[in-house]
Amino acid sequence: MATFNVIKASGEREPFYESKLRNSLRKAGADQQITDKIIHSIQRILFEGITTEKIYREAFKQLRQYSNSSAGRYKLKEALLELGPSGYPFEKFIGELLNRLGYQTDTGVIVNGNCVSHEIDVIAEKDDEHFMIECKFHNRKGHKCNVKIPLYIQSRFKDVERNWRSQSGHEDKQHQAWVVTNTRFTTDAQQYGKCVGLKLLSWDYPENNGLKDLISHVHLHPITSLTTLSNQKKKLLLEQNVVFCKQICEDKQVLKSVGLDNHTMNKVFEEAMDICNVKNNSVNR
Amino acid sequence: MATFNVIKASGEREPFYESKLRNSLRKAGADQQITDKIIHSIQRILFEGITTEKIYREAFKQLRQYSNSSAGRYKLKEALLELGPSGYPFEKFIGELLNRLGYQTDTGVIVNGNCVSHEIDVIAEKDDEHFMIECKFHNRKGHKCNVKIPLYIQSRFKDVERNWRSQSGHEDKQHQAWVVTNTRFTTDAQQYGKCVGLKLLSWDYPENNGLKDLISHVHLHPITSLTTLSNQKKKLLLEQNVVFCKQICEDKQVLKSVGLDNHTMNKVFEEAMDICNVKNNSVNR
Repeated sequence: MATFNVIKASGEREPFYESKLRNSLRKAGADQQITDKIIHSIQRILFEGITTEKIYREAFKQLRQYSNSSAGRYKLKEALLELGPSGYPFEKFIGELLNRLGYQTDTGVIVNGNCVSHEIDVIAEKDDEHFMIECKFHNRKGHKCNVKIPLYIQSRFKDVERNWRSQSGHEDKQHQAWVVTNTRFTTDAQQYGKCVGLKLLSWDYPENNGLKDLISHVHLHPITSLTTLSNQKKKLLLEQNVVFCKQICEDKQVLKSVGLDNHTMNKVFEEAMDICNVKNNSVNR
Repeated sequence: MATFNVIKASGEREPFYESKLRNSLRKAGADQQITDKIIHSIQRILFEGITTEKIYREAFKQLRQYSNSSAGRYKLKEALLELGPSGYPFEKFIGELLNRLGYQTDTGVIVNGNCVSHEIDVIAEKDDEHFMIECKFHNRKGHKCNVKIPLYIQSRFKDVERNWRSQSGHEDKQHQAWVVTNTRFTTDAQQYGKCVGLKLLSWDYPENNGLKDLISHVHLHPITSLTTLSNQKKKLLLEQNVVFCKQICEDKQVLKSVGLDNHTMNKVFEEAMDICNVKNNSVNR
């Protein structure tokens, strides 16, 4: 097969790897036969310099014809972007994600540092672990967190930690600062984070343990993943703090409050159940 | 006299103080009589909620009719804004300012830190003083540097300092990081800077030793202060690294290179000489 270069959202160019596309379709839950069909049809539209965005849109369109829930999982990256435009739902999302991983969390807290006070997006505690987490939400793909973000979070952390350390009961705590983004970090941001002991978490960093992996492990897909629900209804649900498909699975009635008829409610509920409970639930793109 | 509130560029409201306006006109070099005349005429246009911008424009228009050089000094704040749109001329401006204060300077340098490398706007050295300076240029008034700027500069400084400390000859150096802006800092930015030992320098901070005071002390007014030169010619001069009125005073011929006729050249040269050498040379607004 001829080789083509694709252009990523960041503007970078790299060869098209069929295996990557195959992998992401399989992980979204598409079976061998459907995956083969989609790959075959994508091959026919490839050209030098095609954007990964265009390939993704085409694959999503086709996958959706076979399985709504697979398509819902496949669109996780877009679903995170669609949590915007404000960063607030993303913060809530990250707080709840950590909750389901066993942490006690608190969002949007004002904390005194040694020098000044700071607004911390998420505070997470479990046993002797005590984390302060900064969420960096970006509305568009390809927008990376540069080194300035971990640099300022490190100073903020040092300022807060100095205050925490002076409090009783904090002697044995393991304090750590995290920076979480729905997109990616620049290479020097990663290098700086590693060097000073900041935990950085992005769409696919650290490898095999990125945001996409965590979300899949705890079946915590955002409601923006749903293909059976209009954007307008999603917005209404977000405003009512319904952020996860899982919340719909746990209480179907939340759908009633945004004025869905019974038929649509059932369809959305089924898709949410499918997305949350699929066997092969990891997502990759 | 009735009292009026004025609205500052930041959107804040405060009472109009005649003394402030009087002070800034006097410091720009206007004599008692001219100052009285301008104040009298400004009083007639005052109304509740008038912007300081409008007052300034009116005062500048009138001052200009009496003295080009006073007007040139009076407009220092605007002149700094007009160094934009890019931040590069401002960096060069700050580097040269420190030069004239006796420092050896270097601008736009890549410096290795302990974790990553950093681009430092200005490095300044004198005796055992060794400063790294970050310049924050803003295109519009009222845009303040928030606490994130000193926070990230502090981490950058710690990273670079750790590397500097490990080099021979650096044992006795006094390292310090500066953040310089043409506008202002928020209160918590100032508080954080003070607390960790970062030097912050803004339009009027520290009090009586802000950027406007330093510029006046060394007669280093930017060429954008000139009222006898068109914006287009100013741009051309900036592109040729002519940033200061002083450079015109030192070599009139730099004006020839942007295609000025003899008559205009003489007018601009005279104004530059006036601005650089006035007796009462401090500027305040």
